[in-house]
Amino acid sequence: MTKTDILVLGGGPAGIITAVTARGHYPDKSITLVKSVEKGVIPCGIPYMFGSLESPEQNALSTDGLASKNIKVVVDTAMCVDREKRVVKMESGEEYEYEKLVLAVGSKPIVPPIKNIETKGVYPILKEMDYLKNMVNVAKSAKDVVVIGGGFIGIEMADEIASMGEKNVTIIEMLPNILCNAFDEEFCNEAAEKLNEKGVKLILGKTVTEIIADNGVKAVKLNDDTEIKADMVVLGIGAKPNSECVHKCGLDIGRGGGIWVNDYMRTSDENIFAVGDCAEKRDFFTREHAPVMLASTATAEARIAGANLYGIKAVRINHGTIAAFSTYVNGLALGSAGLTERTAQKAGFEILIGTAEAPDRHPGKMPGASKIHVKLIFSKKSRIILGGQVSGGNSVGEMINVIATAIQKKLTANEIATLQIATHPKLTAAPTIYPLVTAAQAVEKM
Amino acid sequence: MTKTDILVLGGGPAGIITAVTARGHYPDKSITLVKSVEKGVIPCGIPYMFGSLESPEQNALSTDGLASKNIKVVVDTAMCVDREKRVVKMESGEEYEYEKLVLAVGSKPIVPPIKNIETKGVYPILKEMDYLKNMVNVAKSAKDVVVIGGGFIGIEMADEIASMGEKNVTIIEMLPNILCNAFDEEFCNEAAEKLNEKGVKLILGKTVTEIIADNGVKAVKLNDDTEIKADMVVLGIGAKPNSECVHKCGLDIGRGGGIWVNDYMRTSDENIFAVGDCAEKRDFFTREHAPVMLASTATAEARIAGANLYGIKAVRINHGTIAAFSTYVNGLALGSAGLTERTAQKAGFEILIGTAEAPDRHPGKMPGASKIHVKLIFSKKSRIILGGQVSGGNSVGEMINVIATAIQKKLTANEIATLQIATHPKLTAAPTIYPLVTAAQAVEKM
Repeated sequence: MTKTDILVLGGGPAGIITAVTARGHYPDKSITLVKSVEKGVIPCGIPYMFGSLESPEQNALSTDGLASKNIKVVVDTAMCVDREKRVVKMESGEEYEYEKLVLAVGSKPIVPPIKNIETKGVYPILKEMDYLKNMVNVAKSAKDVVVIGGGFIGIEMADEIASMGEKNVTIIEMLPNILCNAFDEEFCNEAAEKLNEKGVKLILGKTVTEIIADNGVKAVKLNDDTEIKADMVVLGIGAKPNSECVHKCGLDIGRGGGIWVNDYMRTSDENIFAVGDCAEKRDFFTREHAPVMLASTATAEARIAGANLYGIKAVRINHGTIAAFSTYVNGLALGSAGLTERTAQKAGFEILIGTAEAPDRHPGKMPGASKIHVKLIFSKKSRIILGGQVSGGNSVGEMINVIATAIQKKLTANEIATLQIATHPKLTAAPTIYPLVTAAQAVEKM
Repeated sequence: MTKTDILVLGGGPAGIITAVTARGHYPDKSITLVKSVEKGVIPCGIPYMFGSLESPEQNALSTDGLASKNIKVVVDTAMCVDREKRVVKMESGEEYEYEKLVLAVGSKPIVPPIKNIETKGVYPILKEMDYLKNMVNVAKSAKDVVVIGGGFIGIEMADEIASMGEKNVTIIEMLPNILCNAFDEEFCNEAAEKLNEKGVKLILGKTVTEIIADNGVKAVKLNDDTEIKADMVVLGIGAKPNSECVHKCGLDIGRGGGIWVNDYMRTSDENIFAVGDCAEKRDFFTREHAPVMLASTATAEARIAGANLYGIKAVRINHGTIAAFSTYVNGLALGSAGLTERTAQKAGFEILIGTAEAPDRHPGKMPGASKIHVKLIFSKKSRIILGGQVSGGNSVGEMINVIATAIQKKLTANEIATLQIATHPKLTAAPTIYPLVTAAQAVEKM
């Protein structure tokens, strides 16, 4: 039996940042972090192991730095939690007694129950270095690659694999468009166009009914009975919270299947916290379950949990998930935060929409300028910003964070329209037509 | 006598955006904009007429679009305002009778009273296309260029002129460093290093006492009697509010010499508004006069003024100037908003400082990654953010706007430390070390 004050299960961003934050707030507590694979990867970097990075090893997620912060790291897998005794039993047989337990056990890729899905050549995306290195090697020699799922992981994988050489890359998405859950149609179309330009084929509104196999994958069969030739299939259809272990110990589970947590990331057991993909999320505005699994969301939660382990201070609070994220496809950057037009309407919000376009440098002839497209969604009555989407050049990556900040502080259209922003010819749109401001301005007269 | 409901004096960003905003809010009012030069320029783009832009004409500030918004544009110069009769007399002899008058008359470059300052070859920076085109031509054949003033205009001019070909470019700054008014020393040093790399010579802590002339400029003499050879001198030492015309009509003038305005940009005359460089600014935190002249500040003011001309609605309010701005020198982008360490201490604030560094992509080996350096200034007791500075790659241009938004909404260190931000391998730092968050986190234990 090993005693540790704080036991963190999980070696992804959520686990690491909870441990680091806890170290900052509780310098005298012993902290142990248990991770299930020796060599993890930076989750958001996985697609870039296939093309942009020189070698997959460059995407390693290291926990080496934790030793210097006096955080002990162990490779093992939790099997069972005895909440009464405050003991976690590991696969190795080792037992850990804790004061505070943090569940940061992540998610597992969804593997749909279709025929031959376990065939050699079909790859769910696991966050394990050795597995992914093998997958990269397979991709190198693959000729016909089918990516099932057109969410951001699917399109980034397709984009990168298409960069690896002469390949036929096809994305199959059951929804009417790629990126449908995070963007409204006009932005989905921009991304789709970029994939088309790159030669990636999109098959939309179709489902995969069977993997056709003969000593390895040969093709993918769709619900209209067409077959798409494939020697490699990538499963990018999402993930589900990894909460099996926890179900067993009787913690409350949320409607989305994640571990229920309060605004301080505490579960129904006051000595157990949950963060990241395994923790249930509530949407910032709708207050409904938010099916969001992002490292950025996870680390924000981790910074809240790590500060509140021994007593809630009510200074670090989770006000709900805004699902701020960005993606990149063949030179086009896209960002989204908060509600889209579609999700807002579905949730019953009365909304106003402001859009704007502008070059991302000024004057527009400045070398390197590309077009930014902004869409902001406001509550009709309160004029509070509910969400925003941006596409354009690389500056989108931080521009979406201006929107994310505005959402979290509930700025009104008038506040955004009169926001003091910094502009520069080589870095941003002109102050006269800065598109966040003009998009907010656009709803003024509605 | 011409009658117009709204008369805007000034054809720069402040005047144009006030007119456009007024058109949106008051569709039935007649609007006339009077500008003093036929062909103006985008103010922030002036340095880029010397190098980055293919031709100076690309930096024209056009008012052609105003006609389609039913805004009449006239080239003329106001000579006198008769407030009682509500009449403005123009240089041409024309007279305009107004209901609401907007002063957006800008600023004039400061020309220091030193010997031979009027010599041929000495150029203050005027916002006039023909003047600047000539200046670009002079710069092309110049060999020894001296830029007096190391503020952002001075360094951008020096950077661009140094790009034009084989030239000796020297900046002379009376303060101990360049960019001293907007950045703390460590950021000034980063910019200085970039100028050094480019071969631009910096002479700091020295003043110019005389222009040595002999049928045109020959050299610049410093207060230590050294002489710097020069066949072109650029004056980049700042500007003063252009309020002569207005002094005559008895409006209140602020302590900084600008036209006094209230939080709705209204002057001491209820029918006269002032916006942009000619209007007095108060700092967001210190509430003291803020000597800020930025197009971005001006347009934010214009959007407030334009909405409030006929009755204050108290939805668009100027809460004070945060001087959000960014600059660019030889590949390094720098942004600043709010108070610096120096200005905060000078104003008597008790502060905490958080700093962070991170690559602006992740993993750090992602092609194109460069280092971001962030410094955040917080009020010690309230933990409210007072200011921030960033340097790094081009993403700085929008990252400073995240800080600017945080300042305007008075976020605390804990709110920034737990901010939900979007991250992406190709666009931003990793979520685990996103530097705005970690810089805020750094003050947690202080």
